[in-house]
Amino acid sequence: MQNRTVFFISDSTGITAETFGNSILNQFPGRPRHVRRPFIDTADKAYQVLREIDGAAEREGLRPIVFITLIDAAVRDIVNQSRALVLDMFRTFVEPLEIELGMKSNHRVGRFDDAAKSQEYTNRIEAINFSLAHDDGQSSKNLDIADVVLVGVSRSGKTPTSLYLAMQHGVKAANYPLIPEDFERNALPLPLAPHKGKCFGLTIAPERLQVIRQERRPNSKYASIENCRAEVSAAEAMMRREGISWLSSTHKSIEEIATTILRDIRPDRLIY
Amino acid sequence: MQNRTVFFISDSTGITAETFGNSILNQFPGRPRHVRRPFIDTADKAYQVLREIDGAAEREGLRPIVFITLIDAAVRDIVNQSRALVLDMFRTFVEPLEIELGMKSNHRVGRFDDAAKSQEYTNRIEAINFSLAHDDGQSSKNLDIADVVLVGVSRSGKTPTSLYLAMQHGVKAANYPLIPEDFERNALPLPLAPHKGKCFGLTIAPERLQVIRQERRPNSKYASIENCRAEVSAAEAMMRREGISWLSSTHKSIEEIATTILRDIRPDRLIY
Repeated sequence: MQNRTVFFISDSTGITAETFGNSILNQFPGRPRHVRRPFIDTADKAYQVLREIDGAAEREGLRPIVFITLIDAAVRDIVNQSRALVLDMFRTFVEPLEIELGMKSNHRVGRFDDAAKSQEYTNRIEAINFSLAHDDGQSSKNLDIADVVLVGVSRSGKTPTSLYLAMQHGVKAANYPLIPEDFERNALPLPLAPHKGKCFGLTIAPERLQVIRQERRPNSKYASIENCRAEVSAAEAMMRREGISWLSSTHKSIEEIATTILRDIRPDRLIY
Repeated sequence: MQNRTVFFISDSTGITAETFGNSILNQFPGRPRHVRRPFIDTADKAYQVLREIDGAAEREGLRPIVFITLIDAAVRDIVNQSRALVLDMFRTFVEPLEIELGMKSNHRVGRFDDAAKSQEYTNRIEAINFSLAHDDGQSSKNLDIADVVLVGVSRSGKTPTSLYLAMQHGVKAANYPLIPEDFERNALPLPLAPHKGKCFGLTIAPERLQVIRQERRPNSKYASIENCRAEVSAAEAMMRREGISWLSSTHKSIEEIATTILRDIRPDRLIY
C-alpha cells in the first residue's frame, strides 16, 4: 500500500468518513499517503478533485483508493469518473435503508447542519466547560450535577478521559487526584464523600507511570519508581475499600476507557 | 423510524461505527432508539446480543437495523442469524480492498490495538496537555511550538475548538482572548506579535454572543448587546488590519471550524 494514495472526499468535514476509513485500512499492512478533501459541494470543486485523483494515478502507476461521502448526485458522478477504486460510504448503506424503510433519504448534506442550534450540540459544549472547570479537583462546586467523577493518582489519564467523555458523549465528567495527603488520612478527598456512587477510578502500572512522570519532572521523588509503586498501591487499596470501580489505563486508549466507564456508570448513555 | 431500534455492535468501542452510522440515519426523518453494544468479541456475548435484537424485533413488530463492525467470522455469523437488517460496515469495504490490493486483510480486532504505545496516540495526549496549559492565554511559554494560536473575544468558541484540534488531530492549539485592554492599546496581545503567522481568528454574531454571555453573567455590562457589538467589531477590525484569517463560529460546529482552520493554517495536516 505504501505507493498508493487514499483520498477521503466529503461535502462536509469528512472527519467521520476518514476515521471510519482508517479503521478499515488498518486491516491491511503498510501506510498509504492520506489526502482529505473536505467541503466538496460544487461541480467545480469536484472537477478539481478529479484532476488531483487522476494525477496521483498517473504519478504512482497504481489507482488510488477513494472513500466518498457525497450526497449530491452531480458531484458524486464527477468523482466517479476518476481512475480510482471509489468506495461510496453513503449510497452503500442509504440504498438498503431506503428499501427497508420504504422511503427516500432526504439528501441532507453534512451531518452538522444547524449544529450550533441543536440541543445535543449545546449539551456537548456545556459538558466541555463543566469538565474544564472541574479538572484536577479545581472545583468541588456543582459536583451534584456531574455525571461521573474520575479519581486516580496524578498522571493516570484522568484529564484526557474527562475531556473526551465531554466532547464525544456530552457527559459532565469531573476529575479529582488522589494525593499523598489522602493516603495519609486514609480517606477519599472530603468533597467526594457524598458522590461516591458516581466515582470511577483509573489506575496505571507503576513502570508506565514512572516514564510519564519522569518526562514531567525528571529525577524527582514524584517520578521515582518507589513513589509510583507506593501511590498506585495506596490508591488501589483505597478504591477497593470504598467500593469504587476502576480500570487500568496502561494499555487502553481514551476511547476504550471512556466506553468502559459509560457502560459501568451510565449504561443509559449507550441507549438513547 | 420512531418505533425501530438501531443497534451498533462492535468488537471494539463501536464509537467510529456509531458516529458514522448516525450520519447515515440522519438522512432519514425520525429518531429511532439507539443501542450501542461494545466489546462483543466472544460467541457468548454474540448470543446475548442476538437475543436482545430478536427481543426488540418481537416487541416492536419491525425488524431492527443493525450496524456491525465485527472482525471475527464466528461472532459475525451469530449476529447475522438475527431477524434484523444487518449492515456490515467492515466486510462491505474490506472485500473490494482485498481484491484491489491482492491480499487478505489481517483481521485485527479493534482499531486501538496497542494504542498507548503508538506515536500518534502519544502526540494526541501531548497536544491535549499543551492546549490545556495554553487555554485562554494562561501561558505564553512555548508558543513557538504551537501549531496554531486561536484568537477572539471571550466566548467565541476558542476553548472547545482548541481541545478538539488537539484531541482529534494531535494539533497543539493555544488560544488567546482579545480583551477590551487590547482594543484600547489597538494591538494584539504582546506575546502574540512574533507568532502572527499562525494566528487564526474566531468571530461570532453579537446577538449569539449576548445569549451565551447572558447565561454566564446575567445582566452584566459584559453580556449587554452594546458591549458585545463593540467587542466583536473591534476584534474583527484588528484581525483585518493584522492580516489574520478568521471565520464566524455562529452557525458552525467545532468539527467544521477545526477542519477550516487546518485547511488554512496547516494544510499538510490534511495530507499525511
